Amino acid sequence: MYKYPKSFQLLVDKFKELPGVGEKTAQRYAFHLLNSYKSTDFEDLITTIENFKISMHKCPICNNITDKDICSICLDSSRDKTTLMVVEQTKDLISIESLSLYKGIYHVLGGVVSLTRGISIHDLDITNLINRINSEDIKEVILATNATLEGETTARYIKELLTDSDIKITRIGYGLPVGSDLTYVDELTLIKSLEGRKIYE
Amino acid sequence: MYKYPKSFQLLVDKFKELPGVGEKTAQRYAFHLLNSYKSTDFEDLITTIENFKISMHKCPICNNITDKDICSICLDSSRDKTTLMVVEQTKDLISIESLSLYKGIYHVLGGVVSLTRGISIHDLDITNLINRINSEDIKEVILATNATLEGETTARYIKELLTDSDIKITRIGYGLPVGSDLTYVDELTLIKSLEGRKIYE
Repeated sequence: MYKYPKSFQLLVDKFKELPGVGEKTAQRYAFHLLNSYKSTDFEDLITTIENFKISMHKCPICNNITDKDICSICLDSSRDKTTLMVVEQTKDLISIESLSLYKGIYHVLGGVVSLTRGISIHDLDITNLINRINSEDIKEVILATNATLEGETTARYIKELLTDSDIKITRIGYGLPVGSDLTYVDELTLIKSLEGRKIYE
Repeated sequence: MYKYPKSFQLLVDKFKELPGVGEKTAQRYAFHLLNSYKSTDFEDLITTIENFKISMHKCPICNNITDKDICSICLDSSRDKTTLMVVEQTKDLISIESLSLYKGIYHVLGGVVSLTRGISIHDLDITNLINRINSEDIKEVILATNATLEGETTARYIKELLTDSDIKITRIGYGLPVGSDLTYVDELTLIKSLEGRKIYE
């Protein structure tokens, strides 16, 4: 059977590694490069990937992604350092930030406990979270993991760990449809969910 | 408003150039690289893109994509050099080849006449096609452009150009639903369409 040239198929295979991309879509992407990319476009793409590789890393304080030593939120002296919001992923942080409502700081877990995907509590950055809560002047911890079974389990686990402290622990809740993902929720729901947060029992 | 780090957003913008990819999907792709790519994976990706850039080009005879001087189909001495199939794109050639039915050679136009997208007959590789037909020992030309208005217009134009020659000119037709794209048609329809080809009047 006829096959695509090797250099072509290798790029198609790379595109297929991206989430939700199958053979046909990967081929469309490769043809796009073949048909509309000039030599300088390729160089530009390679430079972009190299810069991404070199400069992108996690903030050592909160795990937010950054290309600086410390992320812009942790560095921002105008933010309220006594309120700490715990989110699953950076994209959740972005969703909250897009509201321009929350003025506290964050901790990005990097995931949630999941039996099906084999992620245990030890795979998440919980130790640093507890260290931060104990060493920094935190008065409120907002648990903003997603309203899924995994997000709820993770929130509950963190709550248990902090039972003995006198920090106020809240959970965003109002308005968040069960089973939903923070990234795809509309702004109003997200605002309601922030306003309606309550003491996590 | 909070923004993604620059190196991150630049990669997102690159992904957004791909057909059908919007902001959210591009972010998912960038996060995939950030979360699951090791240093060697990045180097591997860059090498793949570089090889693609350097070695992929069009076959000087038929415009099929190749990483050799001349494409494997034009080089294949076992193929019937008296039957020439005209297709719009390389992906159409791949669709036909996947049947292992057609044993002739190809000419890839690189597009079709389209008023809406501003593609005129002069943007297609028609001159080389006519030269090939006049200089090579072609007995049949199969017009296999898509069953769209643009594909039909292009086929008709080529037919007009060849009116004075005594070459048999056929058009694939049977089974091809109007408005469809060769790449997404099922195998049986494609086989029927080949078998049921008829003299193009």
